[in-house]
Amino acid sequence: MSTDAQHGAAAAPRSRLAGVLAPVLTPFDAALAPDAARLARLCRWILDQGCAGLAVFGTTSEANSLSVEERERLLEQLVASGIDPAVLMPGTGCCALTDTVRLTRAAVRAGCGGVLMLPPFYYQGVSDEGLFRGVSEVVERVGDPRLRVYLYHIPPVAQVGWSAALVERLLTRYPGTIAGMKDSSGDWSNTGVMLRAFARTGFDVFVGSERFLLANLRNGGVGCITATANVNPAAIARLHRGWRDAGAEAAQEQVDAVRGLVERFPMVPALKQIVSHHAGDPAWRTVRPPLVELDAARTAALLDALRERGFSMPGFGA
Amino acid sequence: MSTDAQHGAAAAPRSRLAGVLAPVLTPFDAALAPDAARLARLCRWILDQGCAGLAVFGTTSEANSLSVEERERLLEQLVASGIDPAVLMPGTGCCALTDTVRLTRAAVRAGCGGVLMLPPFYYQGVSDEGLFRGVSEVVERVGDPRLRVYLYHIPPVAQVGWSAALVERLLTRYPGTIAGMKDSSGDWSNTGVMLRAFARTGFDVFVGSERFLLANLRNGGVGCITATANVNPAAIARLHRGWRDAGAEAAQEQVDAVRGLVERFPMVPALKQIVSHHAGDPAWRTVRPPLVELDAARTAALLDALRERGFSMPGFGA
Repeated sequence: MSTDAQHGAAAAPRSRLAGVLAPVLTPFDAALAPDAARLARLCRWILDQGCAGLAVFGTTSEANSLSVEERERLLEQLVASGIDPAVLMPGTGCCALTDTVRLTRAAVRAGCGGVLMLPPFYYQGVSDEGLFRGVSEVVERVGDPRLRVYLYHIPPVAQVGWSAALVERLLTRYPGTIAGMKDSSGDWSNTGVMLRAFARTGFDVFVGSERFLLANLRNGGVGCITATANVNPAAIARLHRGWRDAGAEAAQEQVDAVRGLVERFPMVPALKQIVSHHAGDPAWRTVRPPLVELDAARTAALLDALRERGFSMPGFGA
Repeated sequence: MSTDAQHGAAAAPRSRLAGVLAPVLTPFDAALAPDAARLARLCRWILDQGCAGLAVFGTTSEANSLSVEERERLLEQLVASGIDPAVLMPGTGCCALTDTVRLTRAAVRAGCGGVLMLPPFYYQGVSDEGLFRGVSEVVERVGDPRLRVYLYHIPPVAQVGWSAALVERLLTRYPGTIAGMKDSSGDWSNTGVMLRAFARTGFDVFVGSERFLLANLRNGGVGCITATANVNPAAIARLHRGWRDAGAEAAQEQVDAVRGLVERFPMVPALKQIVSHHAGDPAWRTVRPPLVELDAARTAALLDALRERGFSMPGFGA
């Protein structure tokens, strides 16, 4: 058992993740195996476009469709490819405590800037006490003051979420280690609760969609972790950099419009078709079951709509 | 890619699992590690009480709170301890395709009578096409005519389920391999749909609660896989054996009454307290997060209620 001091103030000050992060799509080869080279290329492009970080192994990454070993290997390969681990916030929250510990430990040892932690999501209606114990076990077992946990709140998918009361309890027990939240509830009132309660205590709130980016920043939040940053990173990063500027509202409307086009379709298959098209690389279309790739007609409709808006992925193509 | 013949009629005839199966509780030690010796002891007792099989690694087993390696090791240890693998129907369905393939392959190689397969349960609103592809990948990759897949339908927990249209498609493509279903929907009308559509085609329907056992057997089903078989196996197995007898209704009412007492409490912690009490073994109380053990007051209420009904676990105590 380690003490609070190990997890809190004793940790050396490091820069904290803030701004626009992409939950990076995971490319698969024809045998449905993850493709580290294609992943690294997309990661580099997203960073070059001005994003602050990479929330690899998120919902958009089909991370829960990957084994623990596949995630561990991809993380090693990404870092080996030259991606700075300090900009990485890999998803590490699994249903199994032992899996979450293993992935979180690997992320900390690799030097990742943080981890994005889903609650265990199989059992429904679990108590805050049970979720608290789960996080406690992970923090204590990893036992490393470098650990920064961002709580991943996405009840529309995971069903299970992190309540404000639980966040407070975790922050009190593990100050410094509990570093923030990604709020993908899609419910601004929930984000507001988190911001008002915790934003001044070193708890960094990211919203899960750029639609809420301006509102989040104006209310003490630090950025967004958004699926569409896979294809539209420059505009979203620009909105973040210029959020105090006169043109911020117009910039918000612009990124919202692109997102609106993509959201007409299932998000992950749609984003993969966009990347595939702009890379000139059919392999990027592949998704793992239970997801299904977007069919040709819907893909054409999506790409046409984006083309009409003048959308492109500059510098990503062959 | 293998052919239908490999998965269908070419498989040698073997006895099929039928009757009462227990989704066996998983004991943990003080460090929350699975305890194979205690598990094997409970398994042997359940079989000695007249149950036909063991659906280890189910929802009641906290299987999704275990890593793939933990499940693999436990299965090996169970078989090494002398449990006949032919009576085992381990849960092997995970969110990640590669995990499901690995666990399913291990189960087939160990000689298990079948596997109980959850659909990938992270993504919501996935299509039957995506679920079909997932099962196809597993069946083709395992590539073993001994494989028998029982589809685990438990939408109240997993959210994602197996529709009748999807079952039909799977049965057509993989006859012999798609062997049946555990219906834990709690919705008898769904069970009725499955029985009417598929029970005569070698598709064995188990209900997920003994409450529906008599109705299931009278309508062409083959048994139940029920949490309470961990503590009340003899009475439930007796109901199965005597379902055509005059006393069947009364026997159904008796097992329902015991279940009703247990259902007042969270099922897994309640069952573990019952086992702990009758084994005289406090270690059995332990659950893994996110579950929480039953507190002393509620445990006393549960045990008192069972004692008043004359409930016991004969032959299990020290």
